[in-house]
Amino acid sequence: MTNKKILRIVPIGGLGEVGKNMTLYEYGNDILIVDAGIMFPENDMLGIDYIIPDFEDYLKDKRDRVRGIIFTHGHEDHIGAIQHLLEMVNAPIYATRLTQGLVEVKLNRHGLKGKADIRTIKAGDKVQIGPFSVDFFHVCHSIPDGVGLGIDTPAGLVVHTGDYKFDHTPVDNWPTDYAKLAEFAQRGVSVLLADSTNATDPGWTPSERTIDDGLDVVFKAAKGRILVATFASLISRMQQVVNAAERHGRKIAFTGRSMVDNMNMARELGYVDFPERLVISLEKSLSMPDSQVVLMCTGSQGEPRSIMGRLANGTNRLFDVREGDTIVLSSHPIPGNEEPVYRTINQLFRRGADVVYESIAPVHVSGHASQEEIKLLLHLVRPKYLVPIHGELRMLKQHAKLAQEVGVPEENIRVVENGQILELVDGELRLGERIPGDYIFVDGSGVGNVDRGIVRERETLGQDGIMVVNLSINQSGNLKGDPQVISRGFMLPEEMEPLLENLTKQLHKTIRQSDGDIEKPVLRTVKSFLYQETKRNPFIFVNINRD
Amino acid sequence: MTNKKILRIVPIGGLGEVGKNMTLYEYGNDILIVDAGIMFPENDMLGIDYIIPDFEDYLKDKRDRVRGIIFTHGHEDHIGAIQHLLEMVNAPIYATRLTQGLVEVKLNRHGLKGKADIRTIKAGDKVQIGPFSVDFFHVCHSIPDGVGLGIDTPAGLVVHTGDYKFDHTPVDNWPTDYAKLAEFAQRGVSVLLADSTNATDPGWTPSERTIDDGLDVVFKAAKGRILVATFASLISRMQQVVNAAERHGRKIAFTGRSMVDNMNMARELGYVDFPERLVISLEKSLSMPDSQVVLMCTGSQGEPRSIMGRLANGTNRLFDVREGDTIVLSSHPIPGNEEPVYRTINQLFRRGADVVYESIAPVHVSGHASQEEIKLLLHLVRPKYLVPIHGELRMLKQHAKLAQEVGVPEENIRVVENGQILELVDGELRLGERIPGDYIFVDGSGVGNVDRGIVRERETLGQDGIMVVNLSINQSGNLKGDPQVISRGFMLPEEMEPLLENLTKQLHKTIRQSDGDIEKPVLRTVKSFLYQETKRNPFIFVNINRD
Repeated sequence: MTNKKILRIVPIGGLGEVGKNMTLYEYGNDILIVDAGIMFPENDMLGIDYIIPDFEDYLKDKRDRVRGIIFTHGHEDHIGAIQHLLEMVNAPIYATRLTQGLVEVKLNRHGLKGKADIRTIKAGDKVQIGPFSVDFFHVCHSIPDGVGLGIDTPAGLVVHTGDYKFDHTPVDNWPTDYAKLAEFAQRGVSVLLADSTNATDPGWTPSERTIDDGLDVVFKAAKGRILVATFASLISRMQQVVNAAERHGRKIAFTGRSMVDNMNMARELGYVDFPERLVISLEKSLSMPDSQVVLMCTGSQGEPRSIMGRLANGTNRLFDVREGDTIVLSSHPIPGNEEPVYRTINQLFRRGADVVYESIAPVHVSGHASQEEIKLLLHLVRPKYLVPIHGELRMLKQHAKLAQEVGVPEENIRVVENGQILELVDGELRLGERIPGDYIFVDGSGVGNVDRGIVRERETLGQDGIMVVNLSINQSGNLKGDPQVISRGFMLPEEMEPLLENLTKQLHKTIRQSDGDIEKPVLRTVKSFLYQETKRNPFIFVNINRD
Repeated sequence: MTNKKILRIVPIGGLGEVGKNMTLYEYGNDILIVDAGIMFPENDMLGIDYIIPDFEDYLKDKRDRVRGIIFTHGHEDHIGAIQHLLEMVNAPIYATRLTQGLVEVKLNRHGLKGKADIRTIKAGDKVQIGPFSVDFFHVCHSIPDGVGLGIDTPAGLVVHTGDYKFDHTPVDNWPTDYAKLAEFAQRGVSVLLADSTNATDPGWTPSERTIDDGLDVVFKAAKGRILVATFASLISRMQQVVNAAERHGRKIAFTGRSMVDNMNMARELGYVDFPERLVISLEKSLSMPDSQVVLMCTGSQGEPRSIMGRLANGTNRLFDVREGDTIVLSSHPIPGNEEPVYRTINQLFRRGADVVYESIAPVHVSGHASQEEIKLLLHLVRPKYLVPIHGELRMLKQHAKLAQEVGVPEENIRVVENGQILELVDGELRLGERIPGDYIFVDGSGVGNVDRGIVRERETLGQDGIMVVNLSINQSGNLKGDPQVISRGFMLPEEMEPLLENLTKQLHKTIRQSDGDIEKPVLRTVKSFLYQETKRNPFIFVNINRD
């Protein structure tokens, strides 16, 4: 029994997107970590900055067993928790050059410069990490230099795609490595863990290259300046916008720290390539004729403090939106961000710009495989077992349906959520132990000191506000003067006056009728009075000052 | 000069969707109100139940001039504010039978039964309301019995579409009245006010009839029960689901008060038509074989207190989701509701149901005209001026672009926001006065006593919570004992202890060093200490009890 070869696959990160942010592979006493990313809070997770996977609980007694940390690509939802992971785990990091660059920028920002042992790998490399023999293979995605993994262990070969799409004409001319996928199939793949993000999207995700045509239409029609907003990490989009600027006789200025930093790094490493003469400073751009200028910045998600957010609000320091500007949002709203994104678009229109966004023109494409690509992957890899990862449960379920359509038997598909350990034992994939695994909220400088209970309190506070009632009681137990009431987020002060008069009367009565403890009766009176009068339930604090 | 014929068009309702919820037409001393609907709050409008148009300010001195209130159709965003409007205005209401039925249900619920003078009209009627000669014409939409309006005045003819689509095969076999639109064109249309909701959607909105095929696919595949969730007002969808049940040998039970009420009313009025034998009680349905049952309920927007919301949470009283259930969400998430809708879908999957929704199968279509329909409308009506209404600014702008494509001159298109009055003077449409017009928030029983400032306070409370610090000061000005701290929504109590120890030390120091007023220094100390330690800014209250 003890000689069984067992590979444990541990998707970590709370309910939500399975295996997107962090997956552990464990063989014997050795652990390999794939990705350590953050999640973005939902709209009702008030005050939360971001969420990290709950790796602490699982790793606390095993931190010395970690042999390596692999990053598949440089997006925040895959690398964003690295500074938290490094507080606990000391292991070499494996990443491609661009991903390494982005990880380093992040570590530097957290004062961890030089603290990590980062080993540069490239697609095509085969690296032995403890008992894991890892083949890195190239995948297309919305950031260059992404890799998928073939993880070979004595228990079997696992293929882990990371985020991918099959783009036949990617901007960097480097398609996903079909041959390597087919080679894995020949070696025999026990388990495929594959991206499910777009499992509900029919067809084939358009090539990044189609954006060139979209940009051409917009650039041709624009009479004034062109402002393009996208993610700072969308390196290939920078290249495309520079190319469009050149085709249409414009110069380009990059603005915003993260955009400029990433552009410089990508340029240094050779991930973008354009002649110096095309790039001008922001200052220069502001004095040039509008028709010769392109500005590229961040803020495509309607973040109020980004450049685009400030332009929409009219609070940008260095320049404003001008009548005649054409603004291109080259992005898709992150789920839950629809309202701020569309609000930003409306505000930009209100300031006289023409705004072009995904629903108006093809200025953005997804970086994830759609249904036909997902099926192609299954045909190429021909895994025995499929574990859909990267997606909400509804997407994993749809991925499972697609797999059944192309012949994967239902019983060989494991739709699991984070915290459900899978064990590959002698070629059979079975469900293992279930670990708690929940969200860990990061708020300000605090990690994990706000939980769902605290968030619910915030929600209640936010719903109806608060009221603080201060009472002074003299030694004979009577109210000294009127109660003092302070409220926040409850009601307009001028509308509250008649209410407070009546409340005061009721409180006098309540206190007269109470003997001994008056706090509880006072609280009850305030609560029921306010609910009756307003149908609202503010948080109520009663302070009693006794002489 | 005084003989000029002036028609004032007053779109009311705050920034956001122009003219969607309420439009006033004013000629001389007479006012006609078209629709009085509510808006749904955005995610960051914490605690707000709904929003009503700010008609009070404009109408307060003119309430006696209102000659009539017309409802174009029975959706909440067009009728939902009626009880508020009737508090101010006493005028006859004009509505088709179904719309009237829905308005009456609403009035009864607010204890206003029989208080309104409702006059039934039908498409094809021509009614003189003060100086306004109104032609009611049939339009297709996602609720039956919708009408658009031709409003003739001495200043010119205005066509107001309300929500519409051009459905060639509507469920009730009653297409939009092309002939009447063409007739208006022959009479000469001065101004067209038209629905812009889907102005960014290319092509032609699919017919309601296409849902039959979508339902057939789902019903054919389903082995267990089928649960269909949609809006209670989507009367034609009820008919389609009953028909599908019949085609597939199932019985149907309706559940949920609003669904049952509306179904009964629509049936009584003849808007749905099906044999008694198909409909069973919920109770009966629970004892029948799963494969013979369809349940129809509300909750397609993920509302936690709806039946579907309770099924997802496992808190429904009368029945639960069963393994093998097929759940159909026949709806589209209202913008901003994406998160709760997808969360509900994920929870239903987690409980063992198979969930079919818009992205999986064609089980819902929009009720609004897409781009080709919008162009058709313009060709049919041939207005001199176009005022895009019903939509965010970005949709109005897109509507304007479509109009230019079909030949409406740019200078004859007026993209305005709510509060911008338009004046049709001797055949020319010009901008009139701008009235303030803002959102009026309804929260609990309060109308307008919460404003944006109060909502911002709620947001701040919700972000980082609150902390109440109680200090007792003796007569020599020294702290008596330690400060007592209560917090909500700030941090887990167990994590706060070391923090509070340090805070207490700092407060002792602050108070020792202050002479006279100690409240402000204490507040400053708490605020800067908490920010430094946690990078958070809770609301802080300091209570000082002096001996």
